[in-house]
Amino acid sequence: MSSSQLQPVLDRIDADFDNSLERLFALLRIKSISADPAFAGDCKAAADHLAGIIAALGFAADVKPTAGHPAIVARNNGNGGHGARPHVLFYGHYDVQPVDPLELWHRPPFEPAVADHADGRKIIVARGAEDDKGQLMTFVEACRAWKTVTGSLPLDVTIVIEGEEEIGSKNFVPFLEANKKDLKADFALVCDTSMWDRDTPAITTSLRGLVYDEVRIKAANRDLHSGIFGGGAQNPIRVLTRILGSLHDDDGRIAIPGFYDGVEDLPPDILERWRNLNLTPQSFLAPIGLSIPAGEKGRLLIEQVSSRPTCDINGIVGGYTGEGSKTVIPAQASAKVSFRLVEGQDPAKIRNAFREYVTARLPGDCKAEFTDHSNAPAIALDWNMRPLAAAQRALTDEWGTEAVLIGSGASIPIVADFKKTLGLDTLLVGFGLDDDNIHSPNEKYDLRSFHKGIRSWARILGALAEGPAKTDGYAGQARV
Amino acid sequence: MSSSQLQPVLDRIDADFDNSLERLFALLRIKSISADPAFAGDCKAAADHLAGIIAALGFAADVKPTAGHPAIVARNNGNGGHGARPHVLFYGHYDVQPVDPLELWHRPPFEPAVADHADGRKIIVARGAEDDKGQLMTFVEACRAWKTVTGSLPLDVTIVIEGEEEIGSKNFVPFLEANKKDLKADFALVCDTSMWDRDTPAITTSLRGLVYDEVRIKAANRDLHSGIFGGGAQNPIRVLTRILGSLHDDDGRIAIPGFYDGVEDLPPDILERWRNLNLTPQSFLAPIGLSIPAGEKGRLLIEQVSSRPTCDINGIVGGYTGEGSKTVIPAQASAKVSFRLVEGQDPAKIRNAFREYVTARLPGDCKAEFTDHSNAPAIALDWNMRPLAAAQRALTDEWGTEAVLIGSGASIPIVADFKKTLGLDTLLVGFGLDDDNIHSPNEKYDLRSFHKGIRSWARILGALAEGPAKTDGYAGQARV
Repeated sequence: MSSSQLQPVLDRIDADFDNSLERLFALLRIKSISADPAFAGDCKAAADHLAGIIAALGFAADVKPTAGHPAIVARNNGNGGHGARPHVLFYGHYDVQPVDPLELWHRPPFEPAVADHADGRKIIVARGAEDDKGQLMTFVEACRAWKTVTGSLPLDVTIVIEGEEEIGSKNFVPFLEANKKDLKADFALVCDTSMWDRDTPAITTSLRGLVYDEVRIKAANRDLHSGIFGGGAQNPIRVLTRILGSLHDDDGRIAIPGFYDGVEDLPPDILERWRNLNLTPQSFLAPIGLSIPAGEKGRLLIEQVSSRPTCDINGIVGGYTGEGSKTVIPAQASAKVSFRLVEGQDPAKIRNAFREYVTARLPGDCKAEFTDHSNAPAIALDWNMRPLAAAQRALTDEWGTEAVLIGSGASIPIVADFKKTLGLDTLLVGFGLDDDNIHSPNEKYDLRSFHKGIRSWARILGALAEGPAKTDGYAGQARV
Repeated sequence: MSSSQLQPVLDRIDADFDNSLERLFALLRIKSISADPAFAGDCKAAADHLAGIIAALGFAADVKPTAGHPAIVARNNGNGGHGARPHVLFYGHYDVQPVDPLELWHRPPFEPAVADHADGRKIIVARGAEDDKGQLMTFVEACRAWKTVTGSLPLDVTIVIEGEEEIGSKNFVPFLEANKKDLKADFALVCDTSMWDRDTPAITTSLRGLVYDEVRIKAANRDLHSGIFGGGAQNPIRVLTRILGSLHDDDGRIAIPGFYDGVEDLPPDILERWRNLNLTPQSFLAPIGLSIPAGEKGRLLIEQVSSRPTCDINGIVGGYTGEGSKTVIPAQASAKVSFRLVEGQDPAKIRNAFREYVTARLPGDCKAEFTDHSNAPAIALDWNMRPLAAAQRALTDEWGTEAVLIGSGASIPIVADFKKTLGLDTLLVGFGLDDDNIHSPNEKYDLRSFHKGIRSWARILGALAEGPAKTDGYAGQARV
C-alpha cells in the first residue's frame, strides 16, 4: 500500500456514510445489556450479528463461547501471516449498560435515531451509541473502506470483541488465556476513550484502575416495625450511612488507612502542562449543572478527575423506597462502592482495606457481606510505544488540531490483561465527548465523531502500515 | 343487661368461632394497600365489604368519601340515644401496609390461612392479619355475639373505620371535623396495640409521636459516569450518607441541636416499676436475632423502646441498585427518616430542626428537597380516665393474669385527634404480640389473640355497661 491509496479510501467513507450509519443502527437495536440475565439472548444475538458484519469484510470470524456472554474472534492476515507487515489486535465490546431510569430517556433507548443537539450538533441517540458500539464500528467501517477500495487491509488485523466489559470482563481474561495463539499481534488498538474536546483528538496514555465492591449490612432476622423496636434494635441503614459517610474527610480525602500508600504526585513539569490545559469548572462542570470541583482540596480539577484516586458510592438501597411512608427498620441495607485507582495502588490491598474499614466499624449484632465486582490496577502506558507517533500524526491530519496525549479517569481493565496475558501494549484512541451521557439516560455519539472516527482509523491504519513494523521507528512523546 | 348475660355471650363466641375466622379471612383477601394508588379500588372494596358486615349487625352503616380512601361510620344507639347508658366510639382501620419484599413471604400475603408457628402456636398468616383487620374484627365479632344472644348491644356504639392510617391519616382529621356530630360519644376505644406478653393483657396509656420526613439530595443535572467525573463532581449518595451518618453520636443520642428539649426523665418510681418488668434482650431481642440494645447508652431497654425519642432511617435509595455493577454517579439520592417523639417534643419543631440540620451540612452544588409524610405529637393518656378500671378488670378476668398499663413505642396519631377534634379520651386495648411481623413479610396474628380478643371485648363491653356512665366511678391507676 502507499499513501496515494488513502484519499480514495477517505472518499469512499464519505460516500458510504449513510450505509455505515444504518449498519450501526442495526447493532444499536439489539438490547445487549450484559448485567441483566434477562438479556442473555440479546447478547448472543449482538455477537452473531457483529460477527456476520465482520465476516462479510473477508475476516475469518467466529463467535466463541465463554463462561458468560460469547466473544468474537476475527482474523484477517492478508499476507498469509508471513510477518513482513505489522499485525494489530483491535478490541471492543458489544455489551451495553442497563438503561434505568428508563423514564428519563427522551426516546426508547434501543430505537436509535439521529437527533439535533440543543447547540445544533447532529447526534446519534441510543444506549451504546458511543459506549462501545459506535466507537467499535468506527474501526470496522474503516476496515470496510480499505477493503472496498484496495481489495485488502494495509496491515494484518485481528479483531476481538467481548460481551462483558460493562460487568467487569471476568470471563474474558480466561478466554484470552485460552485463545492466546489466535490473538498474537504486535500491539493492541482499543476504541473506548474520549477526545480532549470537540475539536482536539487524543490518545489516552494512562488509565485509572477500578475496585468495585458491594457491601451488605445485616442485623435483625427480619424487617421490624420501628414503633415496637425503634430505639432498641440496630438499623442497618443507620450503620451503613454512618460507615460510608465517614469514608471521606473534610478535605475530600479518603479516610481508609493506607489508601494513598504508593500514590505519587505528578512530576512538576507534567503538572505544569496539565495546568496549561486549563480544565475549568466552567467548561467541565457547568454542562452537568455543577460549578465547584468536589474532590480533594488543593488539587487541580484535572488532577481530581484523572490522576488522583477516588471513591464513589454508585448505588445504595435499603428499607422502604416506594411511595409514601412505612415505619420499617429493615433487616439489611446494601451499597455499591467503587474506587478509581492510580499507579502505585494495589487493587487487592485497597479492596481489603475497604472491607477492614467497614468491618472494624460494625456495631454488635451487625454483620457485613461483600461481593467483588471488579478489581483492576491503574495503567500507565509506555510513552515510547512504537505506534504512538504514527497515530498522533494521523489524528492530527484528520482533525486539523494537534492530537494530545492524556490521562483518563476511567478504567479499561482489559488493557492490563492484554499486557499480562498477551504481552501487548495498547494504543487507546477514541472519539467520545464528555457530554455523551454514557452509562446514563440519553446516551449519544456525535455524528461527527462517528464520521471522522471512521476517517481517523482509516488514516491510522495507513500510518501504522507505513511505519516500521518490528523496529523502534516512532519517537517517544511526553505526556501532557 | 346484667352480668348473667355475659356467659351465654362468651359461649356463643366459642361456638361461632369458625365463622368469625371465615369472616376475617374474607376481609384479609382484599388488597387494601393504602400507600399505593394502584390499590385504590381494593381500598374502596374493603370499606364496602366491612360496612356490609357491620350493617348486618343492625348498625346504620355508611361508606363515606374523604379526600382519600373512604371511611365507614356506623351507629347503633339501642336506647334511641337517650343518654342513660355509656356511648363508645370504636376506631379501627381497614388499610394495610405494602407487602414488599414479596419474595420473603412464605405464602401469598392476601391468601390468609391458619398455620403452625414453630413453637406449636396456631397463627393466622396474611398482610393485615393483626394490623389492623384482625384486631378490629375482634371488636366487631364481640358486638355480633352480644347482638345474637341478647338482641342488642349493652351500650351505645358508634364505629368509625378509616382507610389511611398506614399513610398518616391526612384526610381523616378533616373528616372527623366534618362529621363531628355523628361521632359524639363518651370516650373512644381503639384496638391497634399489643399485649405485654403472650399471657399478659395490657392497656396502653402512652404513645410516642411521629415525625416522618423524606429528604432528596440533588447535585448534577443527570447521572454521570464515575470514570469521567469521579473525583470532580458531587455525589448525592456520598452527601446523604455523610449527613444521615452523623445523626447519632457515639452514645446513640440524636445529634440534632435542640432534639431533646422538653424531654424529661421518667419519675424515679415509674422507672423502678419499669425496671421490675425486666424487659431483657433475651426476651425482647433474641426472637429477632439480636442481643444488644442499640439505643441510648445508660438507658433501660424498655426506656429505649417506649419512653425515649428515637430516629430511624426507614428507607434509602440512590444510583444503581440492580444486579452487578454500574459506575454511575447519580443525579440524586433520597431517604425516608422518622422520629419517634415523646411528651414535651413539638413535632413541627423537630421536623424543622431536622431540615435545618440537613441543609446546614449541604456542600456547594447540592440542594435538598423535603416531603412531610407524618407529623404527630406524643400522647400521655389520662390515668384517671373512667373506663380504665372496668377494662382492666374485664381483661384480667379473661386472661387470668393481671392486665398491666404500659407505654407504647408506637404512634397512633388519631388518639391526639380524637382528643382535639372530638374531646374524647381513648382506651387502647389490643391483642398483638411482638412477633406478629406487622409491617413486615409474614405478618401473623395468634389464633388465640383473635379468639380471646373477641371474648375480651365482649367482657369489656359488659363491664363498661355496668359501670357508671357519666360520673367518676372508676379508680385511677398508676402507670407501670
